[in-house]
Amino acid sequence: MWTPGKGLLLALMLITQSFATAQANPANRASQFELANGLVLVVVPDPRAPVVTHMVYFRVGSADEPPGTSGVAHFLEHLMFKSTGKLANGEFSAIVSRLGGQHNAFTSYDYTAYFERVSKDRLKNVMQMEADRMVNLQLNEREVETERQVIIEERRVRTENVPASILTEQMSAALYQNHPYRIPIIGWMHEMAKLSREDALAFYKRFYAPNNAIVVVTGDVNPAEVKALADATYGALPANLDIRPRVRPQEPEQRAPRRVELKDPRAGNASVRRYYLAPALTNAAPGEAEALYLLMKIAGVGGTSRLYQSLVVEEKLASSAGGWYSGLSLDSGSIGLYAVAAEGVPLDKVEQGIDRVVRDLRANGVTEADLERAKKQFIAEFVYESDSQEALARRYGSGLVLGLTIDQINSWPAAIAKVTVAQVKDAAAKYLDIRRSVTGTLIPTASEPENTIASPPSAKKG
Amino acid sequence: MWTPGKGLLLALMLITQSFATAQANPANRASQFELANGLVLVVVPDPRAPVVTHMVYFRVGSADEPPGTSGVAHFLEHLMFKSTGKLANGEFSAIVSRLGGQHNAFTSYDYTAYFERVSKDRLKNVMQMEADRMVNLQLNEREVETERQVIIEERRVRTENVPASILTEQMSAALYQNHPYRIPIIGWMHEMAKLSREDALAFYKRFYAPNNAIVVVTGDVNPAEVKALADATYGALPANLDIRPRVRPQEPEQRAPRRVELKDPRAGNASVRRYYLAPALTNAAPGEAEALYLLMKIAGVGGTSRLYQSLVVEEKLASSAGGWYSGLSLDSGSIGLYAVAAEGVPLDKVEQGIDRVVRDLRANGVTEADLERAKKQFIAEFVYESDSQEALARRYGSGLVLGLTIDQINSWPAAIAKVTVAQVKDAAAKYLDIRRSVTGTLIPTASEPENTIASPPSAKKG
Repeated sequence: MWTPGKGLLLALMLITQSFATAQANPANRASQFELANGLVLVVVPDPRAPVVTHMVYFRVGSADEPPGTSGVAHFLEHLMFKSTGKLANGEFSAIVSRLGGQHNAFTSYDYTAYFERVSKDRLKNVMQMEADRMVNLQLNEREVETERQVIIEERRVRTENVPASILTEQMSAALYQNHPYRIPIIGWMHEMAKLSREDALAFYKRFYAPNNAIVVVTGDVNPAEVKALADATYGALPANLDIRPRVRPQEPEQRAPRRVELKDPRAGNASVRRYYLAPALTNAAPGEAEALYLLMKIAGVGGTSRLYQSLVVEEKLASSAGGWYSGLSLDSGSIGLYAVAAEGVPLDKVEQGIDRVVRDLRANGVTEADLERAKKQFIAEFVYESDSQEALARRYGSGLVLGLTIDQINSWPAAIAKVTVAQVKDAAAKYLDIRRSVTGTLIPTASEPENTIASPPSAKKG
Repeated sequence: MWTPGKGLLLALMLITQSFATAQANPANRASQFELANGLVLVVVPDPRAPVVTHMVYFRVGSADEPPGTSGVAHFLEHLMFKSTGKLANGEFSAIVSRLGGQHNAFTSYDYTAYFERVSKDRLKNVMQMEADRMVNLQLNEREVETERQVIIEERRVRTENVPASILTEQMSAALYQNHPYRIPIIGWMHEMAKLSREDALAFYKRFYAPNNAIVVVTGDVNPAEVKALADATYGALPANLDIRPRVRPQEPEQRAPRRVELKDPRAGNASVRRYYLAPALTNAAPGEAEALYLLMKIAGVGGTSRLYQSLVVEEKLASSAGGWYSGLSLDSGSIGLYAVAAEGVPLDKVEQGIDRVVRDLRANGVTEADLERAKKQFIAEFVYESDSQEALARRYGSGLVLGLTIDQINSWPAAIAKVTVAQVKDAAAKYLDIRRSVTGTLIPTASEPENTIASPPSAKKG
């Protein structure tokens, strides 16, 4: 069970890419149904192997957590493998393994998803078990206690021990002034430590229900057959009529650039990053998200990108450099840029190098040749990714859970193809706006920082 | 009706000072009662003039607002002057004026307070009217519409037109990563614009009740007489049994210094400010808040302060400089430092001057002579302030509403007197920690900033 958004830099790139490269041939193969209780079912036939991928997406993520209970969405994701009455603690995982399958789960800001891959004849078992835990989760105090230690340890390993992850958290907290995207998906440690069985169950009862779920099945199946299985399993569950569309606090006008400086003896080479607020695919003007995607592909992805060519190849300021656009979210997207200083190069010189690339993109945009190459790369990756059963399931699941339609998801390649150089330049000029940004620096220190972290106010001074 | 916290720098200084200077002689004169419905009554006899000051403090402020409804506490403060069934829109103010009195109201992060000063024989009228609007507020759509325009205009005048206020907001949003002190008391404009009658009434019903109120009466009265009046007015109101102690999301460990840079053509001379998180009086270790108060009096208050002497007098880097400690809050205090650049001095030189003062305070603390002088100043101001009937009422009201006892409030001068130079040095070393800080710069630009503020994502590109 991993959580995108902790290694945010990488995770966002993966998400963006997997989405961007995600709609070619199977477009016409996806069928969508809605069960009587409101559950949405998407079936994408893929006859190449006798296995199926089954995913359940819930329209709830960490950005829907009640204030003060950060981490509860991810905590619940872990607890979903505990006892349900029918299944004992851990039995879900054991059965999937015994069926020869694999499983996984993900928590993001906007959704929580559960994944299984099994042989085709085991699909019904999996659907039965997912339907069971969708409404019958029990949870006892001991399971909750134990699992709280697990998520705390997860935070230690993935965040506390990784200065780059700490910086990501600090930058997100500064980028979002009002929106809960400010808060780490895994939670703040002091709030995770207080998460209770009641917190988890209240969250579960509020958000887990068939009418808040999207089930995606890809593989060697036909839609009618899967629909019948869904009716026989999920179809028996009652809808939760209290479920409402999600409304989160939105960002105010942003007007002042921010900076965050993290010093850490474990930092490795000094590095600099910048995040800009940008629209999400779900709320961008027509063509804008596509333009941002291509802009950042040209600016930041791979060895031919502007950032890499300028900072690493030509000016030799950085040992690596890149950037991305992340737009697959409910309320707000973001743009990221980064560079790791080359040996002996001061970090402000590296940042000035980034600034030059940004200035050039805002003033001059990209060339027709850049744009054509980026579009071709997109198509190649898209086709390649469509080969993956899991990628297909995630494409539809993550799109639908954010409110996109199958048509919108399928038309992404066509929308990408239509982007013009003028649109890319406009997007650069509009969204690479320093006032809507936070710049983070990660600086190695020879020893412990200047002074030890102060204890909480009420604690005795150490 | 003004709102402390919009001109935060000034407001916090005023609050800190008014509190710090607020307990000498009348200590033994304050009587506290609790009515059967839970309302707390404090009476402070002060026979010097035949007027009384009457204040109602509610245990609710902007930090208690539901997410996405920022500004509703202050909006409700305005709406409390609308119709109640007994009183028509505006009649409250008209009656107080006709009685020859004055009135005012305040919203802070932690409380909302209503103030009246009238002649002694009018006290009962005022108590009747306050009791009435404590539970009988009606509000119609037109009153709400009109008043929403008033608070929006208030925000325009006090925040949007004042670059220093904008910077304060931006710095608070960066200082607090998790706590609602991050959000401006007056609200974010886009959320204020959506505040509805339902938002205001829901907030009113949740937080306004006799058992969530503290009434303070100072003036030419005797406690038994006031208690009888309170029983006859407030005593008739039902308690709200759903009221619970307030619990807000607390800050995570802070580990990386932040910066905010605001450029504005209206900025005047360039200036730099720094805020540090610090404990509040309510949660500091014994003696710590007192040490912080004296530290910052020595460091930042007046022409003899370290900051003023170093930056303005000796080094001539700044035209003004100072600092403060603000500890009168429920969850977290803060320390502030500021300097305005002298003509022709680059702002980074000014900031380096502040850094030198901070380094010296952390390494060397203050002298016995400094400390004695600061304590003497405190006593002088304290006595001076005790002459003010309103200041007395605010001292007890704002202390009690945060959970302090009358004894704790009265013992503040004794606690100040006990502070040692070692405690001051410890406080400086512990809390002037750059990792728990945000530094803000306000920089004038000759013309409009580099590029105009981007429109919201969904709007047409301008």
